[in-house]
Amino acid sequence: MRKLSRSTRHQRGKPKRAGRPAKHRRQPHDVETVTDAAVRVFNRYGYEASSMEDVARETGLTKSSLYYHVSGKEELLTRALARAPIAVMDEPEARNGTPLDRLRHVISRLASIALQHPRELELLQRIKGNTKAERQSLDRRRYIYRAVEGLMRDAISAGQIRSDIDAALLARLVLGMSDSISQWYRPNGEFAPRDVSGAMLEIVFAGIEPKTH
Amino acid sequence: MRKLSRSTRHQRGKPKRAGRPAKHRRQPHDVETVTDAAVRVFNRYGYEASSMEDVARETGLTKSSLYYHVSGKEELLTRALARAPIAVMDEPEARNGTPLDRLRHVISRLASIALQHPRELELLQRIKGNTKAERQSLDRRRYIYRAVEGLMRDAISAGQIRSDIDAALLARLVLGMSDSISQWYRPNGEFAPRDVSGAMLEIVFAGIEPKTH
Repeated sequence: MRKLSRSTRHQRGKPKRAGRPAKHRRQPHDVETVTDAAVRVFNRYGYEASSMEDVARETGLTKSSLYYHVSGKEELLTRALARAPIAVMDEPEARNGTPLDRLRHVISRLASIALQHPRELELLQRIKGNTKAERQSLDRRRYIYRAVEGLMRDAISAGQIRSDIDAALLARLVLGMSDSISQWYRPNGEFAPRDVSGAMLEIVFAGIEPKTH
Repeated sequence: MRKLSRSTRHQRGKPKRAGRPAKHRRQPHDVETVTDAAVRVFNRYGYEASSMEDVARETGLTKSSLYYHVSGKEELLTRALARAPIAVMDEPEARNGTPLDRLRHVISRLASIALQHPRELELLQRIKGNTKAERQSLDRRRYIYRAVEGLMRDAISAGQIRSDIDAALLARLVLGMSDSISQWYRPNGEFAPRDVSGAMLEIVFAGIEPKTH
């Protein structure tokens, strides 16, 4: 039944991938390379529609070898999402200094995370929240949005950023630009990570400066 | 076999939706409400993994009634993606005026489209390009990116925007902020559409102003 389901799904518009993808065939496997493969599979089919068989096929391992590395699909999701360390609010630079200093640190760190882990962030943006691991990640994400909104509010009160836009809306738009990096950024592509995060910070912090006229 | 496949997929982590969803049961159906339902289904399962049976279940129609309205899944995708009219580059305001005027018009229109059709834009961001309808939409999207990059380049040459960031990177980041609206914006939610697009334009155009110091 599982097998039928797979082949049916592959017939619906997706090119069949028979056998093991050559480029991963000879790679030694550890829990990290298996997690890499899981991220590719989850982004391709969606987390819910992906099976351990899909991940096994992507790695070139048998399903039983895969279970030697991890306990199952949810562990793979947890490991993947843990790569984007969104505990930035606990970092000292996020807790000390003026609101603007703290904001600059947090936005800069979130941009770096988007650049280091674009595929994991893409995954985070697509999960629905049906399992505990998904809900925990979505909660952490919501916590970041609220914290950035709070920093925006404090920076407005301190006269450090413009006061004509609501703090929640500022947070949404600025984090939206940061999150969107994962949609188009490719490591070793057209742009160096430092240029991307530098440009983003320039645009954002010039864009939210207090208005002088 | 189709039936087995569906029930298998529903067993994998997704709550079963038996029967017709109550809130759509009494709604009169036309091609637009059927397209609405298809957008919800495609965003939920992914376009490829969605079937006409899923769309029928979402509308409360039988599958054969559904085929009275549309020829199939690809027509539904084409109709959904056509709702986000990304032919903005052909509008007179996109073709006349200074590069900055044209840029302002195009970014403003793209933000409005994201606000009017967030779910259709979400769908556009997730399609992979395996069918003709998908590829045409992705091509139109790529065309917009290139056109905005060209306008950024012209505005840099004209001294109307900052020259310290590459035009392609400016286009990516600014369109990223605009596209990200579809990730969080809910019609009739916390923010009025006019406030969102107004705030976005304020941040973006203050952020890319020529540097005076």
